[in-house]
Amino acid sequence: MFKKVLVANRGEIAVRIIRTLREMGIKSVAVYSTADKDSLHVKLADEAIAIGGPRSKDSYLNMKNILSAALLTGSEAIHPGYGFLAENELFVEMVEAVGIKWIGPSPKVIELMGNKANARESMRQAGVPVIPGSDGFIMNPDEAKAIGDRIGYPLLIKAAAGGGGKGMRFVYTEAELVDKFADAQNEARASFGDDHMYIEKVMEHVRHIEMQVIRDQAGHVVYFPERNCSLQRNNQKVLEESPALGVTQTMRDGLGEVAKRAVEAIDYENTGTLEFLQDYDGNFYFMEMNTRIQVEHPVTEMVTGLDLIKLQIQVAAGEDLPVKQADVKVNGFSMEVRLNAEAPERNFAPSAGQIDFVFLPTGGPGIRIDSGIYQGAKVAPFYDSMIAKLLVHADSRAEVLAKMERILDEMVINGVDTNAHFQAALLQDSAVMRGEFDTQYLEKEFLPRWQKKLPLAELGGGDGFIQ
Amino acid sequence: MFKKVLVANRGEIAVRIIRTLREMGIKSVAVYSTADKDSLHVKLADEAIAIGGPRSKDSYLNMKNILSAALLTGSEAIHPGYGFLAENELFVEMVEAVGIKWIGPSPKVIELMGNKANARESMRQAGVPVIPGSDGFIMNPDEAKAIGDRIGYPLLIKAAAGGGGKGMRFVYTEAELVDKFADAQNEARASFGDDHMYIEKVMEHVRHIEMQVIRDQAGHVVYFPERNCSLQRNNQKVLEESPALGVTQTMRDGLGEVAKRAVEAIDYENTGTLEFLQDYDGNFYFMEMNTRIQVEHPVTEMVTGLDLIKLQIQVAAGEDLPVKQADVKVNGFSMEVRLNAEAPERNFAPSAGQIDFVFLPTGGPGIRIDSGIYQGAKVAPFYDSMIAKLLVHADSRAEVLAKMERILDEMVINGVDTNAHFQAALLQDSAVMRGEFDTQYLEKEFLPRWQKKLPLAELGGGDGFIQ
Repeated sequence: MFKKVLVANRGEIAVRIIRTLREMGIKSVAVYSTADKDSLHVKLADEAIAIGGPRSKDSYLNMKNILSAALLTGSEAIHPGYGFLAENELFVEMVEAVGIKWIGPSPKVIELMGNKANARESMRQAGVPVIPGSDGFIMNPDEAKAIGDRIGYPLLIKAAAGGGGKGMRFVYTEAELVDKFADAQNEARASFGDDHMYIEKVMEHVRHIEMQVIRDQAGHVVYFPERNCSLQRNNQKVLEESPALGVTQTMRDGLGEVAKRAVEAIDYENTGTLEFLQDYDGNFYFMEMNTRIQVEHPVTEMVTGLDLIKLQIQVAAGEDLPVKQADVKVNGFSMEVRLNAEAPERNFAPSAGQIDFVFLPTGGPGIRIDSGIYQGAKVAPFYDSMIAKLLVHADSRAEVLAKMERILDEMVINGVDTNAHFQAALLQDSAVMRGEFDTQYLEKEFLPRWQKKLPLAELGGGDGFIQ
Repeated sequence: MFKKVLVANRGEIAVRIIRTLREMGIKSVAVYSTADKDSLHVKLADEAIAIGGPRSKDSYLNMKNILSAALLTGSEAIHPGYGFLAENELFVEMVEAVGIKWIGPSPKVIELMGNKANARESMRQAGVPVIPGSDGFIMNPDEAKAIGDRIGYPLLIKAAAGGGGKGMRFVYTEAELVDKFADAQNEARASFGDDHMYIEKVMEHVRHIEMQVIRDQAGHVVYFPERNCSLQRNNQKVLEESPALGVTQTMRDGLGEVAKRAVEAIDYENTGTLEFLQDYDGNFYFMEMNTRIQVEHPVTEMVTGLDLIKLQIQVAAGEDLPVKQADVKVNGFSMEVRLNAEAPERNFAPSAGQIDFVFLPTGGPGIRIDSGIYQGAKVAPFYDSMIAKLLVHADSRAEVLAKMERILDEMVINGVDTNAHFQAALLQDSAVMRGEFDTQYLEKEFLPRWQKKLPLAELGGGDGFIQ
């Protein structure tokens, strides 16, 4: 087993990883930006190294400085957490080149899954159901039209090398197809120097269901109960749960076997998550794969009783998975609420400042709060606004909702705005209570209603999102 | 189900009960002394009623004021927690007389188990193994001598009506018996107006193992995995765990069946705990029964996944137990550390004051902290010194120890002294790590060693417990 591991992250996930390292008897090395010098992950780690200025590109994305910190401290492995460099194959290559173990998959696999067109194609070849669309690449409007005839409209034209919306067009009718394809392809060529395109059907009224798997170096694979992450805003998950209502054990095992085949096909190491869209008929379509631990991994930990960070470290160290598929049971129900430092009534504007007072309700059965905050801590404006994950576990979904409402109500955080009241309202929404919502529900239905109900007094400085 | 329940307690257990009431949709009523007006249980309850001055006898032991508070608020039931009036049959009679439901057993049963001689005799008659000694009462030295011949020395003479050590004598040899018996009997007669005596063998090198059971009004009984509470100081538990090392499933079921017979024999309602001594040969001897929820109930909640406070409320409301014996599984291992506001290096002198800063490490899998404290809260000098229960759950005892050491180390409480460093030292003791300790171990072996190791600088104002 490793003697020392560097954690290339900040906030709650750095704290989470450092704690498991400590319990495993492994020394931890924190890295921090100058803005984070008093952060909890710095206080809890055995060693801490400054890696740059407050902006992410100067610190948590600063590959050379992080690598230097790892070498300087004699770290044998790097845990990336999520975000920042967690899916940057170039960094992983640099890490491996100096003989440090990356706690995650190979750079080749990260690159493969990072290119959405290649990911789609390799999953399709591995027998994973993908969103209806093109097989391989499309080079001209005639090929696009043939696919439109087959899968119907609306459809989405995407650049194979794309990202950030560049080279992407929604096409609602056949009449628009030729022009929009040309636009997209031109933009792709200009942006990426690559005009390979692909097409996917636009999936409406679908749920976001994801399967996390882990594979050790000897090739043993275990998959975990699915998570339902359909409540999203701006493509960011807001609330996650496991198991998903309406996913039977048979469906779960079917999806798990698909995920298992997929990671075997690409010789995957360590943990990753296949994200699927589920339609009303119960069909699943592969969307993308995250090649790292996810924010919402604790809901899986709560229903399985496993420590997924520990499993990651064991697998990276070359140990066999200590758990077999038959040991992975779904015990009860769990939910995560992402607590963000933001003002939902001001269009979710991020909030920074010093936390003057904090009360986290930790008592009683089935409560877990993962966070990097403490009284006196500063919430810096430079990073993601999530400051805590509120986690609840109980026998039934109804009990989970009651517990989550209770802790949202008990919790006190003064000094920054949070979305606690927004999350509390979401939990009291009848569709959320019934578990009947798709990926559009929060933005298209809940949010407009919530905004209309806001007293004008809460609207503050007139950002004026009520039209 | 009840609509409103009064919680006749304070501190962490009041908070614990109020939280479960809230999750069940039941209104809660807190009672408080003037010293506790800003306490967490007051803040979290739906209603709160002042019941008297800071001293327990003026408030939390003030039967009339608590009963008035219950009547005034229209409370349908009273949950007593532990301590204070939880085992006071007179109070329970008063509560029942005004038509309020007591969340616990009948006053008759509380009285029966409160008299240790009667408890011993009724348990013996129910087939529960008791500590070797007299059957029924002893009235003269000749009878005592016959028992001494049978069970051997040392033995303990006790007053049947006794308590607080009155009418109690240790007898180490037969030569002392006649005089000591007369002394004890005279003292009993003078103290209690009752000279009925009984005799028990002095049990050395034994563990404190206890079985919690619950019985509903329809007579269904479920027993829970045993707890090992052998680490004690001044007859106060310091650290508890479940399951007990060395107790097999067969032993557990045997003990459970004994406990089941016992509660059936006395027509017990609600939860209670039979405390046993376990000798080196694995024999169990009944010691006493606690007729209320215990401090250490969360270790059982963690290994079973049950909410025992919720079960208490359901049973008191006349519902059938929602759990069957076959559903009660032992999942992993759990431990509780009692965090007290006290100075172990000054002979465990209680510490009072305002908490200036608190950081409770709540994150990651398997951590639970039950507490009534928050930043700014006052620890009053009038009550029990326990301010938090640190609880850990993991697959193995070794992992539990590692987690507990971690959270003891991370935790920060400024403003009052705590026993955190003492508990951390206890966890690192090799006998504690191996799980090999009896009820005398902490006081007779660990504590003197710990005190010798204390640097003189920590001894403070010369209370001078190092002789």
